[in-house]
Amino acid sequence: MRGFAALHRTGDPLVLPNVWDVASARGLVEAGFPALGTTSLGVAAAAGLPDGTDAALGETLRLTRSLAALPVHLTVDIETGSVDTAAAVADAGAAGVNMEDAMCPAETHAALIRSVKREVPHLFVNARTDTYWQRAGDLAETLRRVRLYADAGADGVFIPGLAGPADIAAVVAAVEVPVNVLFLPGRHTVVTLAGLGVGRISTGSLLFRAALAASVETAVAVRDGHTVRRDLPSYAKINAWS
Amino acid sequence: MRGFAALHRTGDPLVLPNVWDVASARGLVEAGFPALGTTSLGVAAAAGLPDGTDAALGETLRLTRSLAALPVHLTVDIETGSVDTAAAVADAGAAGVNMEDAMCPAETHAALIRSVKREVPHLFVNARTDTYWQRAGDLAETLRRVRLYADAGADGVFIPGLAGPADIAAVVAAVEVPVNVLFLPGRHTVVTLAGLGVGRISTGSLLFRAALAASVETAVAVRDGHTVRRDLPSYAKINAWS
Repeated sequence: MRGFAALHRTGDPLVLPNVWDVASARGLVEAGFPALGTTSLGVAAAAGLPDGTDAALGETLRLTRSLAALPVHLTVDIETGSVDTAAAVADAGAAGVNMEDAMCPAETHAALIRSVKREVPHLFVNARTDTYWQRAGDLAETLRRVRLYADAGADGVFIPGLAGPADIAAVVAAVEVPVNVLFLPGRHTVVTLAGLGVGRISTGSLLFRAALAASVETAVAVRDGHTVRRDLPSYAKINAWS
Repeated sequence: MRGFAALHRTGDPLVLPNVWDVASARGLVEAGFPALGTTSLGVAAAAGLPDGTDAALGETLRLTRSLAALPVHLTVDIETGSVDTAAAVADAGAAGVNMEDAMCPAETHAALIRSVKREVPHLFVNARTDTYWQRAGDLAETLRRVRLYADAGADGVFIPGLAGPADIAAVVAAVEVPVNVLFLPGRHTVVTLAGLGVGRISTGSLLFRAALAASVETAVAVRDGHTVRRDLPSYAKINAWS
C-alpha cells in the first residue's frame, strides 16, 4: 500500500482513471498513469450485468486477477464490501479498495472498515459515503460520516457528487486522510481540486462512457458515410500488449 | 440463418459492426444495427490475451453466450474454426461464423467448410481468406480460394485487406455468394462498396480501437486540464440495459 498511499499528495493529487477491462488498463498504463481504479458500472455493463450485484462483483474479482501483472497500483471498487472480498482482492494483488456505505447506518460501515483494516492492514481502504448521490448533498451528515470512517481506520474518504468548492474545502478540513472527489466534466479541473486540497481525483464511469460513445459513433459514421478517424492505435500495437 | 442471410443485399450491403463486450453490443443495437459480429482482437485484448489463441477463443464463446439474448443477429469470429466450435456457437444462438484460412492449403479449409455445413447447415459460414493480409494481395490466388470455398458451401466470403475497386469487382464477379469487405477508413465508403456489389461491410477491430483511444484520451484530458466532452450516455441509461 505504501507506494500507492504516497501518490495522494496535497496540492498534487492522484488522478486515478477507472478501467473495466485489461485493454483499457494497458492503454492507461502506457499513457503514464501510476495507478488505476475499477469502475463497477463499466465492469458490470461490459459483462451485461446490472451494477451492484453479486455477479458483477464476481466479474470485478476476475478482472482484478487479470490486472495483477500490470506495473501499476490497482484499487478495486468492491461495492459495500466485506472482509472476505477485501482480502480476496488484496490476495489478487490490489493495493486498495473502495467500500461504499450506500447510506447504511454510519456506525455499521465504520465497523466494517475497522474489521477490514484489522484483517488486511496493508490494504488502502477508501471509504465512500453516498450522502451527495443519495441525499442531495447533506454536508453535516457527510462530515459526521467521513470523520467516523477516518477514525475507524479508513485511509481515504470518497464523496462522489461533491462539487462545490466550499463543501470540498469543508470535507478536506474535517479529516486528516486524503479526500477523493469524482471528476465532473465542466465542474472540476485538476488544478482547482488540487488547490482545494483534494488527494485523489477519480473518473468513475467517465472513461467507460466515453469509450462506449466512441464505438457507437464510429459505427454510425461508417454506416452514414461520415468521416472516420484514422489515427487510432493499430492492431499490431494492441496485440503486442498481451 | 435465413433472416441474417437476407441482410446481405447487393447494392444495399449489410454494415456489420464488430463488438467485444455486452455494452458495445447493446449500444449498437440501440443505434439500429440489425446484426453484429465479434472482433477477435477486441475480445482477446479486453481479456488481456493474445489474439488467435485458444484462451481468446474461450472468451469469444463466453461472450457469445452473453449476447444470445439480444434482439439481433450475431456472427462470431471463430478464427480457423472447427466443427465443434461452430456447433457450439450455433448452440449459443449465433446465426453465423467467420472461419479464416490463415493461408493453410485451400483444399484443407474447403474441407472444413464442407464439414461445418454438413453438421450445422443453418449456420451462415463466412469463409475468410488471408491472401491480402498475408500475401499482399494475390488476386489470382484469392479468386481460386473464394471459388473453392463457395463450392464447398460457404454462404459468404471475406477478404480483409481487399481495397482496390478493380480487385473488389473481380471477387464479386467470381462468386455467387455475398462478398465481405473490411471497412478501411479513408479508402472505403459504404456507397462505393455498395456500387461494387459488396454484400457485407464489417468494421473488424475499428470500433474497439476507437473506444480504446477515446478512453485514454479522456483520461489524459482530465489529467492535463483539457476539455472533456459532456454529451455521453448516462450511468442510468447504461445500467438500465441490464
